[in-house]
Amino acid sequence: MMITDRLQALGIVLPPVFAPAGSYLGCVIDEGLVYVSGHGPIAGGDMIRGKVGGDLTLQQGHHAARMTALSILATLQAELGDLDRIQRIVKVFGMVNVAPGFNQTPAVIDGCSEVLLEIFGDSGRHARSAIGVAELPFSIAVEIELVARLA
Amino acid sequence: MMITDRLQALGIVLPPVFAPAGSYLGCVIDEGLVYVSGHGPIAGGDMIRGKVGGDLTLQQGHHAARMTALSILATLQAELGDLDRIQRIVKVFGMVNVAPGFNQTPAVIDGCSEVLLEIFGDSGRHARSAIGVAELPFSIAVEIELVARLA
Amino acid sequence: MMITDRLQALGIVLPPVFAPAGSYLGCVIDEGLVYVSGHGPIAGGDMIRGKVGGDLTLQQGHHAARMTALSILATLQAELGDLDRIQRIVKVFGMVNVAPGFNQTPAVIDGCSEVLLEIFGDSGRHARSAIGVAELPFSIAVEIELVARLA
Repeated sequence: MMITDRLQALGIVLPPVFAPAGSYLGCVIDEGLVYVSGHGPIAGGDMIRGKVGGDLTLQQGHHAARMTALSILATLQAELGDLDRIQRIVKVFGMVNVAPGFNQTPAVIDGCSEVLLEIFGDSGRHARSAIGVAELPFSIAVEIELVARLA
Repeated sequence: MMITDRLQALGIVLPPVFAPAGSYLGCVIDEGLVYVSGHGPIAGGDMIRGKVGGDLTLQQGHHAARMTALSILATLQAELGDLDRIQRIVKVFGMVNVAPGFNQTPAVIDGCSEVLLEIFGDSGRHARSAIGVAELPFSIAVEIELVARLA
Repeated sequence: MMITDRLQALGIVLPPVFAPAGSYLGCVIDEGLVYVSGHGPIAGGDMIRGKVGGDLTLQQGHHAARMTALSILATLQAELGDLDRIQRIVKVFGMVNVAPGFNQTPAVIDGCSEVLLEIFGDSGRHARSAIGVAELPFSIAVEIELVARLA
């Protein structure tokens, strides 16, 4: 229960598990890798919506990316039973719902990457892309998918 | 030949194999996983083009996603010889060519996910992201890539 | 040192390694696969920026994709010590920073695919998607991520 203790020490409470928004699963395990579906930011029981660089500031986008990481961990906690089964975060793909001209997408997705590092330490270090997309489901501010290696 | 029988029972005819639109392969097999390149919707010998939520309705986009899944299966049939070699659909990445403001991308990509479930049953259940992008090759309505585990 | 010789024969000089633009790694190795983070085009010590089909022509975009491939190889050279450790390029995901209406994204990303084929021969043949996105980090023209199998 090391990661659970770490979450508590950091004062992090995971949000409720997000039910997939269509005919897919929240994650799939294949030969020791878990592929997590695109997740969005949940805060106060609702999604964080809007275009970063327009409706939302960079800082709000960064917060949305952090909350998205926590939603992913809620899905993994439910699937795995125990987040200690995560050996390594391998890859993060971050998609930001951008207003025209907003190009600071890495600084937004850092909100996800930083909380993964806080929680998992060196095992949280990952490969990543961070792009700006035209539209996201339900106009959420950020969508992130992730691949992790299980112990 | 279980999947072939299933296709026949469902009245599904796979389209001709789509020739890659550049210097890449339709799919690559690596250590028991097949990585399928981005495919688009073929219907009546042509691609389905246009922006969903503008040129095309949600329902037309859903149909395009279904046809894209069938184009992927045509590529896999040609590569594998037998679709029964597919043990599990692991991951789907769905990209919708969206008109500004169209955010129902999960409902569009469900057209792909649902036909995979019809054909493969529980083995067709997968992780997924479904995003809206600015432009797709040749202005196709939907582009989907997929990872599957082989038996 | 076969690939080093091949680069020299082709007159290709790799650019300096690009430092990740946030809290992530340039690449991660997991069980014999290397996942390379999104890279952009470096030329003459700066990034190639702008929207293809607007600020930049198709040909300039194609060149940007080629330079992006070389930046990826610079990262892999630094990580692996020796590019001969690359057994196969498995998958390329190409994202083009597009002006509205520019849909020739496969021809742009061919700039990456073609140089991989020049350098690695048949081992450079890969699965691929090539999409047009709304915005990229720092307004770079092209972003590409890649998965390769190590020997």
